[in-house]
Amino acid sequence: MLPKALQELISAISGLPGVGPRTAERYAYFLYQNDTGTGEKLASAIKNVKQDVKLCPRTFAFIDKDEEMSKLYSDPGRDRKTIVVVADPFDVIAIEKTSSYRGTYHVLGGLISPIDGITPESLRMKELKKRTTEDKVKEIIIATNASVEGETTAHYISNLLEGSKVKITRLAQGLPIGLDIGYADQITLSKALEGRRKI
Amino acid sequence: MLPKALQELISAISGLPGVGPRTAERYAYFLYQNDTGTGEKLASAIKNVKQDVKLCPRTFAFIDKDEEMSKLYSDPGRDRKTIVVVADPFDVIAIEKTSSYRGTYHVLGGLISPIDGITPESLRMKELKKRTTEDKVKEIIIATNASVEGETTAHYISNLLEGSKVKITRLAQGLPIGLDIGYADQITLSKALEGRRKI
Repeated sequence: MLPKALQELISAISGLPGVGPRTAERYAYFLYQNDTGTGEKLASAIKNVKQDVKLCPRTFAFIDKDEEMSKLYSDPGRDRKTIVVVADPFDVIAIEKTSSYRGTYHVLGGLISPIDGITPESLRMKELKKRTTEDKVKEIIIATNASVEGETTAHYISNLLEGSKVKITRLAQGLPIGLDIGYADQITLSKALEGRRKI
Repeated sequence: MLPKALQELISAISGLPGVGPRTAERYAYFLYQNDTGTGEKLASAIKNVKQDVKLCPRTFAFIDKDEEMSKLYSDPGRDRKTIVVVADPFDVIAIEKTSSYRGTYHVLGGLISPIDGITPESLRMKELKKRTTEDKVKEIIIATNASVEGETTAHYISNLLEGSKVKITRLAQGLPIGLDIGYADQITLSKALEGRRKI
């Protein structure tokens, strides 16, 4: 019942993660109607992103196509002996925004999840092990989500580096700032108890 | 901190209705990573939609660029003397899917909403009035949302056509099929009472 071009747009939009048919229709109608150039900008941005964005060959963080390595690694102010390990490149940005970290990063490219076919071999584990030796890394801070996949990945890394002298740590789990204890879920609360610190 | 091309993609995606910064990042990362051509398809579909989709000059429903008028109007099987009035072209599809309507349509292009600057003059009211006379319309079925804007628009149309002999009706409001009465909100329930029918 819909014109072909509109059907194709809706079907392309439905390919985005978590977008259902009604949302796809809403976006499509907006792109069809809107005259302020959102559609043109979006179409050209999609084309550019694959050409102009690369991953750093060392940290696998995002870099511009004319950069050779991420500044988060090449900058002499960054301590290469400390690595924060994250699942995806946006996690790097989230941690950088805190301005409270001066080490470097390693982006795994995902978390171990056998159900989704994500095995340790499909992640950048070998590269992490190699860096650990080459850069004489002293501490690896595992900053994966507090989920089953996050825990599994953290354990895998700690087994992978067993026997080396690297200190392996994990982000603290506990109450998020501002949360009323009465609203915290049981797992968060028990992690907070478990990880309690002397004041 | 992000490469320019990625920032531009995120900002273009944020232009879509209801898309916040985290969702925009998620879509952008997906488009960057995905190798199955979703990005290419999306970019070209956005370009095509403006060229290949038109609105019918009579009903303002979607038509292909090589159609002159919507089949929902030109088809001899459709009764031109009955018009369902809707806000946007997707509403036409929703009603067509019921297969229980053989009249034609009029797409207003929105609902009256002074707060958003949508006045009756910016909608296709004149065109509706013109059609009503030219096609000797007998019934106008107002199928706008059960919202303040929907009600306002319905009243405006009924005032607009006052004095003509057209019968103006509104979609029934009441319990949706399958909803447990205990879960119905008060307004729905009072509309259902008000509109009760003899069995």
